[in-house]
Formats: sequence, structure tokens, C-alpha cells
Amino acid sequence: MSLIVQKFGGTSVANPERIKAVADKVAKYKSQGHDIIVVVSAMSGETNKLVSLTQEMMTQPDPREYDIVVSSGEQVTSGLTALALINLGIKAKSYAGHQIKILTDDAYTKARILSIDNKKINTDLEQGYVIVVAGFQGVDKNGDITTLGRGGSDTTAVAIAAALKADECQIYTDVDGIYTTDPRLVPEARKLKSITFEEMLELASLGSKVLQTRSVECAGKFKVKLRVLSSFEAAGEGTIITFEEDEKMENPIISGIAFNRDEAEVNILGVPDKPGIAYQILGPVADANIDVDMIIQNIGTDGATDFTFTVHKRDLKKTLDILNSKVKDHVGAKEVLSDDKIAKLSLVGVGMKSHAGVASKMFRTLSEEAINISTISTSEIKISVILEEKSLDDAVKALHKAFELDKNITI
Amino acid sequence: MSLIVQKFGGTSVANPERIKAVADKVAKYKSQGHDIIVVVSAMSGETNKLVSLTQEMMTQPDPREYDIVVSSGEQVTSGLTALALINLGIKAKSYAGHQIKILTDDAYTKARILSIDNKKINTDLEQGYVIVVAGFQGVDKNGDITTLGRGGSDTTAVAIAAALKADECQIYTDVDGIYTTDPRLVPEARKLKSITFEEMLELASLGSKVLQTRSVECAGKFKVKLRVLSSFEAAGEGTIITFEEDEKMENPIISGIAFNRDEAEVNILGVPDKPGIAYQILGPVADANIDVDMIIQNIGTDGATDFTFTVHKRDLKKTLDILNSKVKDHVGAKEVLSDDKIAKLSLVGVGMKSHAGVASKMFRTLSEEAINISTISTSEIKISVILEEKSLDDAVKALHKAFELDKNITI
Repeated sequence: MSLIVQKFGGTSVANPERIKAVADKVAKYKSQGHDIIVVVSAMSGETNKLVSLTQEMMTQPDPREYDIVVSSGEQVTSGLTALALINLGIKAKSYAGHQIKILTDDAYTKARILSIDNKKINTDLEQGYVIVVAGFQGVDKNGDITTLGRGGSDTTAVAIAAALKADECQIYTDVDGIYTTDPRLVPEARKLKSITFEEMLELASLGSKVLQTRSVECAGKFKVKLRVLSSFEAAGEGTIITFEEDEKMENPIISGIAFNRDEAEVNILGVPDKPGIAYQILGPVADANIDVDMIIQNIGTDGATDFTFTVHKRDLKKTLDILNSKVKDHVGAKEVLSDDKIAKLSLVGVGMKSHAGVASKMFRTLSEEAINISTISTSEIKISVILEEKSLDDAVKALHKAFELDKNITI
Repeated sequence: MSLIVQKFGGTSVANPERIKAVADKVAKYKSQGHDIIVVVSAMSGETNKLVSLTQEMMTQPDPREYDIVVSSGEQVTSGLTALALINLGIKAKSYAGHQIKILTDDAYTKARILSIDNKKINTDLEQGYVIVVAGFQGVDKNGDITTLGRGGSDTTAVAIAAALKADECQIYTDVDGIYTTDPRLVPEARKLKSITFEEMLELASLGSKVLQTRSVECAGKFKVKLRVLSSFEAAGEGTIITFEEDEKMENPIISGIAFNRDEAEVNILGVPDKPGIAYQILGPVADANIDVDMIIQNIGTDGATDFTFTVHKRDLKKTLDILNSKVKDHVGAKEVLSDDKIAKLSLVGVGMKSHAGVASKMFRTLSEEAINISTISTSEIKISVILEEKSLDDAVKALHKAFELDKNITI
């Protein structure tokens, strides 16, 4: 008998019929003798509806009140899911984040989980209950409701799996696993049986959108066994996210190609090349709770350097306001530029570590397609480039083919 | 400077525009230097939508989960109202029932408030915040969310006014005060400037639907000054609900005519007339959390008596099941009958105490209209009759005219 955490996203609980289908799935696992904790998102569309309501009240909604409104969506689904289970004759109980003390910091709208009180859940599990937890939400030390940011229900599931020492955390989505790239763009994209946490982290944060980055980080940190599965297809083992140490894992050079159209590029040109300059630029941006993704600083000439980073498109205006009002003159920069017609593309693979030539093959392929790259950034297991948004599709297709990702190659 | 609790019902917060209008109204009072606590219901239609969702999951929804789902409606409105206030430059904070420990018993779906923790609210008021509280909900000693039953937001408002020792509790509704009877039925119905708690209690519990009975009980118990006002009309002082001791009050013989089409009559015939029989009949009904309204027992002949009571129509089937399975044979009753095509009509007025002839005038009027009465029940300030549902409109009109309720008569 195992303890399994099962997370169902918005499309999986989109309407009463789907919630009943979720209950059927949970009931099947329960009847096999497992202990089950279910984590649910809001019914799809519901969060957007609530967000719109807050914006009708205030253009930039106060974050504390925003969280109170928006967190209600998951509360509704958790109760409905428990009802669907009870209707099948299964003992079930739902909990909102504050009821099982999913303690977070007070960074409303993007809070981080600090701890979870497992007492109530353990008592209920011992009594045979299936526990349904409202995802995406927590409570800060003052008892104020917080939310974890979009996709936060994944993080809730992983954090609960860690706190309760669950045997497996299953993330049910509208895809049946992790693919080498988006199958809607590249029909030959292949489902991966397994992927390492490191790779998954790069893929998720770069836009593969199957799992929230923080949930993968959290799973890696607490060694939670994570599995991505389809909500809608009965069969299939999905993709398991493994620890790199696992020697039996499938280990191709490149696991996948991630891409992202949501970001904008910001360039601060002619910055005096002094120690602490990165902090002076990014500090005020971070203080405004704006997430910065890629950061590139080139070596300077004439004592000056160019500094580039990317932010979500929706944060671009705010970022430029901050840079122009608080940063530009302060650091003595010449110019602040931006571009929101860009896309980011990343090749990801742990095999890259031990294989030379990946970067050059990548750049050759893009060059053969006459695709121009504006910025390059690399890590141990990833090469990211920024290119024009309109070239993205061609770039992904060409690279998927060049690296033979449709074939199951292991090293 | 006063502390005012202002409660806005579902139609007053039906959509973003109305919520903004509520914020304008609150802002006006705040600018006059008052401290304000706002209590809000769910946006109209929202609670029904949530109830339907629970019923799609389960025909008789588990009450604990039902409360979790249904309470979310008020949480949303509280956050939105706070946002609308903040947007006007007013410091505002919303709280769900559990956040200010509106402690209730655990009678899910119809819980009763036991206490309210006023610490957080007092601190916030001192700092100049307008507090917005989600009505209709509380939390039991286990931390489970409870709801107070339909119209429970009135009770929330009064309980908060009592706990915070507010100077006045204003209930904003879609009517501009308490009328001598429903103006939709009798166009000559007149708005009362004041009414006693006792009268209001009789009127509210008998179906005048402006205020929830329990809220009036609670206001009377804790001497909360209650005022009913229109959400939609700027002017007007509404109707104030006074203590009987107040000598200046308008005091007609009859204050109003209440009526109610929601009840069904249950008759238990041929019950042996023994001590404790009422408890033996009503105990099992109360245990099933069914509210009983009128109770009539006639003096018996041949050692047997007939016992009549009314319940809400929706509880009739359950009540009959209980009576037939647990009560009928146990108490040795001959027959259990019921009728759901009835209506209840009540004349209410403190003046009745000192004026004879009210009952006979009432019965004469109904007789002249050839309206048949099945059951009569009286109290110090009320005469209630049960009659055929189809005769109700004629009865109300005839009595309103006979007692000259369209004229402002004081004794």
C-alpha cells in the first residue's frame, strides 16, 4: 500500500462530468488499497473569470485582496471533488490551504510554501479518508490567504507529497507525458519515458508548460518521485521524472526543445563595467516582484558593458518604467532598449555535458535555415537562444530533425 | 464618530458596477468620519450556481463539503468590495469568516454563531481601515468552514455589530424599509418609520423576507440598533427597528401583515394525550435539523388529541418519512396527513396587546370574503392563520384595507 498524491489541473476538472471522471480515477486507485491525497486546481476558465472581476474593480488589483478572490476557485473544486467521491461511497474530506496550514511567505500572488501541517491529513488518512486539497493557495503567518502564482497547484501537490512522504506524486494534465518538443508544432515529437529533474527544470522553466518550475525544483529538493500522466487517457505510464543518479534511465544527448513566446528582451547599453552593476540593475526589478529569466552580460570594451535580460511580456512596461526612473541615470547607462517580438528556444539534455559539438551543430542548423540569433546563453545541460518570434517555428522543426529527436537514441 | 456596520445583500452586489456603487456609499459614510465594517453576501445568483454544482455531484450533498463550496461566493464579494474601496483611495481589508474566527457550532448549512474574535478588526479600525467581512459563514472548533443558512449574512452583520459594540447596524436591501405588507401585492402598503423588535421578529419569521429571523433575534438580544435601508435609493432613512421601551415610537394597533407560501402543514391525528407527546413527535424532526414553524395542539377528546405543525415545503418529504418510520407507531397515532397547498398569513402589532377585538375583526373580514381558515395560532402580538394558498392574495388585500394599514394611525 502506497501513499499517492494525485494532482488534477483545470482542464481535468473543467465541469461536473470531468470532476466525476476524476473521482472515478481516484476511486480506482483507492480500491487498490492506496492512500490518496488529491490536489485540484480551479475549474478551467474560473481563475480567469475571477481575475477579470478583480481587474474590473481596480486596474492593478491590491494583491492581498486579489488572492482572497482568486483562491476561491480551488476551494470550490476541492469541495465538489470530495462530494463526487462521497457520492461513490468513498470517505472524503476537502481542505482549503489555510485549514491544513500550508504556511507561505506573504508575497501575495506569488507566495512560496514554507511548511505544511500534516497532522490533520495523517489522522484522516488513518481513518480511511481520501483527502482533497485546494491547490494554488496557502496562508501567511498573519492568517491572510495567499496564492502561489499560476500553476501553483503543482507546487501544492509536490509540497504535500514531500510533507507527507508520499511514495509518488502524479501530475495529471491534458498531455500524456513530456515530449521532445510541442507535438502541435512538430508532429514527430516523441514522448519521453523518463527525464531527469535537471532537464525537466530547464524544460519547464523554458516554457514546456507541463509543470510549474517551482514544483519541479521542490520535487528535486525533497526527492519526490514525480510522474506526468494524462487525465483523459486511461492507459499509459506517462513520463517519470527521475534523479540523475538513476543509471538505468534513458539518456539521450538532447532530451527536448523548449520554447517560449511570452518573454520580452531588455537591453541596457553602455553601462560602466563596475562591480555590483548587475545588482544595481536587477535589484529594483526584483523588488517590484518581477521575475527575470535569462540574464546576459557581455564583456565590456572601453570600460563599458551591455546588459541584457528577459522578463514576461506583461511585466515589460513596468520594468522599463523602473529602469528609466531608478536605474539608468543611477548606473550611468547610455540607453535602455527593449524588444517584445522575440522568442526563446532552448536545447536541453544531460547528455550535453559529455558530448561536445552540440552547440556548433545547433548554430549550424539555424544558420542553414537563415535564422538570426540575437542572444545566446548556456548552462551545463542547456543552450538557449533568443531569436525573432516569426522564426521560432522553423527553428524548432529544423532542430528537432537535426538532433533526430523523433528517434529513441540512448547513449 | 460612530462605528457602523453596513450589510449589503446579493442584489446590492450583483455585478461589478453595483459593487462599485456600494463602495461609493461606504466611502460617503467613511468621509463623514465614521468607522465602517461592511458585511457582504454573494453576488446574486452565485449561491444558487454553487448549490447546483454541489447537487450535480450528489443529490443530497454532504453538508461539510456543501459549506466549503457555497461559502466561496461571499469570499469573492468581500475581496471585490475591498478592491473597489482601495480603488477609491480608502484603506480596506477583507476577511473570510474563519479569519476573524466567527466561531459557530458544527451544524453545517445552518450553523449558529457562538463568538467572534474582535481583535483583528479593532486593530484594523484603529489604523483607519474599512473592514469588509464575508457574510453567511463561520468556522467550527475543528477549523471546518460552516454556513449560517440562507440570509445568514444579516446574522453575520448583527453578530459583528454586537461583538464590536457598533452604534448602528444598517441592512441594505432591495426595499427601502419595512412595509405594512408586500407592496407588490397591495400597492397601498405603507412604509413604517419604526417597528419594534418583537414585531419585526414576527414579521420576519412569517415571511416578510427583508431580514433573517435569527438576525433580528440576535439584534434584540444584544440591543443592536438595526436599520433597514435601500441599497439603490440615495435618500430615505429606511425603517428603524426599536426596542419596545422606546416611547416615542409610532405604535399602531397593527403594524403589518406577513405571509408565506413556503410552508406545508403536517397533521398527526389521534395521538394519545399524554405528557411528553409534543417532544416525542417533534424531537426526531428537530434531530434531523428540520425547522418547525407553527405548532398547534388541540385539546383532546376521548384521551386523544390532534397535533399540527408546519415545515418548509422542501423538508416535507423528509418530515413525513421521519413521522411514519419513527413517530407514528411509537406514539400510537392514528394517521399522519399533510398539505402543501397552504399559505400562512399573520397580523402583527404590539398594539394588539391592549386592544381587544382584533381577532374578531380579522375573522369577520375573512368570512366576508368567504375565505376558509384551517388553523389558528395566536401570540401576544400576532394572529396567524393557515388558509388555502389560492385565497392568500384576497385575504391580504382585504385585511390591509379593513385595518386601514395604508393610513398612518398611531394610538
